[in-house]
Amino acid sequence: MSKIILKGDICYLESPTKFTKIKSGFLAINNGKIEGVYIEYDSSFNDYKLIDYSNKLIVPGLIDTHIHAPQNPFRGISMDDELIDWLNKNAFCEEQKYTEEDYYKKAYDIFVEELKKSATTRASIFATIHKDATIYLMQQLEKSGLVTFVGKVNMDRNSPDLLTETTENSIFDTAFIVEDTKNLVNTKPILTPRFTPSCTKELMHGLESLQVRYNLPVQSHLSENLEEIELVKSLHPEADFYAKTYDIYGLFGKSNQNLPVKTMMAHCVWSCEKEQDLMAKNGVFVAHSPLSNLNLSSGIAPIRTYLEKGIKVTLATDVAGGHTKSMFSVIVSAIQMSKMYWRLVDNTKKPLTFPEAYYMATAVAGEFFQDFSLVGKFEKGYDADILVLDDSVLPTTLDLDIDKRLERFAYLNGDIRQGGIYAKFVKGVKLF
Amino acid sequence: MSKIILKGDICYLESPTKFTKIKSGFLAINNGKIEGVYIEYDSSFNDYKLIDYSNKLIVPGLIDTHIHAPQNPFRGISMDDELIDWLNKNAFCEEQKYTEEDYYKKAYDIFVEELKKSATTRASIFATIHKDATIYLMQQLEKSGLVTFVGKVNMDRNSPDLLTETTENSIFDTAFIVEDTKNLVNTKPILTPRFTPSCTKELMHGLESLQVRYNLPVQSHLSENLEEIELVKSLHPEADFYAKTYDIYGLFGKSNQNLPVKTMMAHCVWSCEKEQDLMAKNGVFVAHSPLSNLNLSSGIAPIRTYLEKGIKVTLATDVAGGHTKSMFSVIVSAIQMSKMYWRLVDNTKKPLTFPEAYYMATAVAGEFFQDFSLVGKFEKGYDADILVLDDSVLPTTLDLDIDKRLERFAYLNGDIRQGGIYAKFVKGVKLF
Repeated sequence: MSKIILKGDICYLESPTKFTKIKSGFLAINNGKIEGVYIEYDSSFNDYKLIDYSNKLIVPGLIDTHIHAPQNPFRGISMDDELIDWLNKNAFCEEQKYTEEDYYKKAYDIFVEELKKSATTRASIFATIHKDATIYLMQQLEKSGLVTFVGKVNMDRNSPDLLTETTENSIFDTAFIVEDTKNLVNTKPILTPRFTPSCTKELMHGLESLQVRYNLPVQSHLSENLEEIELVKSLHPEADFYAKTYDIYGLFGKSNQNLPVKTMMAHCVWSCEKEQDLMAKNGVFVAHSPLSNLNLSSGIAPIRTYLEKGIKVTLATDVAGGHTKSMFSVIVSAIQMSKMYWRLVDNTKKPLTFPEAYYMATAVAGEFFQDFSLVGKFEKGYDADILVLDDSVLPTTLDLDIDKRLERFAYLNGDIRQGGIYAKFVKGVKLF
Repeated sequence: MSKIILKGDICYLESPTKFTKIKSGFLAINNGKIEGVYIEYDSSFNDYKLIDYSNKLIVPGLIDTHIHAPQNPFRGISMDDELIDWLNKNAFCEEQKYTEEDYYKKAYDIFVEELKKSATTRASIFATIHKDATIYLMQQLEKSGLVTFVGKVNMDRNSPDLLTETTENSIFDTAFIVEDTKNLVNTKPILTPRFTPSCTKELMHGLESLQVRYNLPVQSHLSENLEEIELVKSLHPEADFYAKTYDIYGLFGKSNQNLPVKTMMAHCVWSCEKEQDLMAKNGVFVAHSPLSNLNLSSGIAPIRTYLEKGIKVTLATDVAGGHTKSMFSVIVSAIQMSKMYWRLVDNTKKPLTFPEAYYMATAVAGEFFQDFSLVGKFEKGYDADILVLDDSVLPTTLDLDIDKRLERFAYLNGDIRQGGIYAKFVKGVKLF
């Protein structure tokens, strides 16, 4: 049973409003869980191993709630294409390669290594339709020490031939992965119908039965852009809004037995009021992906409205719609987009603050991972997911308060040419 | 007389539409000027010193047309403040320190070192009102090898006491700097009335006479946000739009003797049609600062409209309204903002493409520096301002074309934790 205590400049949130700051404080970790945060060292810590991070920032790890692992190789290219071109030329073309063992091993090894080095401590990940590649990805993630949900994607219609499964195989392979990865501790399967246009009603029925049988969480895409919403309308005239196409199969926060179903919906840029209300009622999580919504010209999600309605908003990179794996860049972009929404769309909707955005990426997203254990806060009993940041690589003449240093680190993380993320702990285990 | 030839993967623009790409090509530099770009090596290069950058990208250096050197210390903090709070709490509070020699030396040393390491080869810089600090900044920039315009800021009204000059001192100190820095080769003074609200008519008259006497270029702020425009209206009911308050003093592209006056106006987010037409007519340059316009909630400048009108649009970081000195990040942000403009404001205005944005940051901005010499293109006789980029620090499974590698480098430059900008040449001189 390991007991460690970290010394440094501790900065964390008890609420979305403001940071708690402790200069040269102590963060005690007992067997992978937060024991407590302390201003003074006292003898009760004598059996803890002290790690001295003096003058470095000690902050909660960041959670990326929507990222496509197989799209990692082409992030940051062809960003001038429109969404449909981009999907065909890049996403679908790339995902077809994940039948080849040599290729998917090389690509996923790079992805896992980059994610391990990043500010992300936990993630909810889309793979491809391919069983073997997805299992390999899950095994590599388990080795990395990161905590993740990984979804084999389901697609049995309106997709390129090589990415179209039979309904039976799609369901069987999904079940196979669930059984085959039961031994993994930090890597769990998640149901991942790609999005309504790519899934038949029969497939959705099958996924519903898997959800009920294994009590699996769900992730998908919702109301990302206007053309997509029109397509769903034409495919499902019976559904009076997009989310209904998931909800009728018990895959939108609540099962048809009225049991909770952990559900993460990416984007929700153009959700109508009824859809928003259902998200709030069913406790559905939103994976807000501002960089992707920018790059793919989707629009700006009305995040302040969602918060007012009590919807659980989290933050995500959405690689490769989003070009970076840096959750710090996503936090900055979420704030910037909320400022544009305030200026250009609705000046009654106050922009997000830095603490609000940081809270979404830690405490709120942490709730989605509670099937593993509590995470996302520096509170007793929570998993010790921690970043140690070295902001001395960003010289300044100013003597900044701890929370300003964290804000500055988030904004300038792109300027860091060395160091930056100095150490990273997940469940109390030091990854580097 | 130095003759060097660079071998590598060369990528440059002859027009804003598409990149010219030469895999394992040769770029010849004769006495600081581009001699030419070649597919094959031939014996005529035998008296050139070959530098082998095989597999690295060789691209034109980037030009930052609007940056506040004294705001560098606080970039990336207090970004949740509204513009006026932000100015008072950060900008004005910081700029007051530049009377203290120890302070401004420390701050400007950091600024110059960071700018030297960045992707920026040339810049047009705002200093403070202070004569000595500004001269020190210019001397350090001259040592750095970068090519810059530097403006002592003029402010004689509506400013904090410690940043309010007498009209006489403001004009005298500006003239003193012009005389005192005549010996500098790569660092030139530029007239810099901060913006109309901070300059009396008498001061503007004085600056006009300095412009005529020394044939100086001009830089200032224009139509950045709606509150600012209202303020200018209330101060100058006689001017039928904001730009008139510069134009009547011959400080908006043309002198009152109808001679050209190189003029760089930052932001132009909310310029009215008449203002746009005057910019086009007088050949005024726009310093488009998308990251600043985001962070300070200013809005989105109608860049496609400006291009359609033939206005010369360049790109700028606007540190510290913009949080980064990376011109690659500015290029990406300009593209992203143009996509939001298309989606949210006017869907007849096509988003900017990557080549268009890169062209603005090189060829178009280069025209503003023609008082020094030709720059911004890989054409015979142009100054050899060059970046050598090592994109091998960003592993991928894909075999990408050269222009895709450059686009990827621009989007992922924030993810680079080492290397990145491998070498940098300004006027054929290797800075690192």
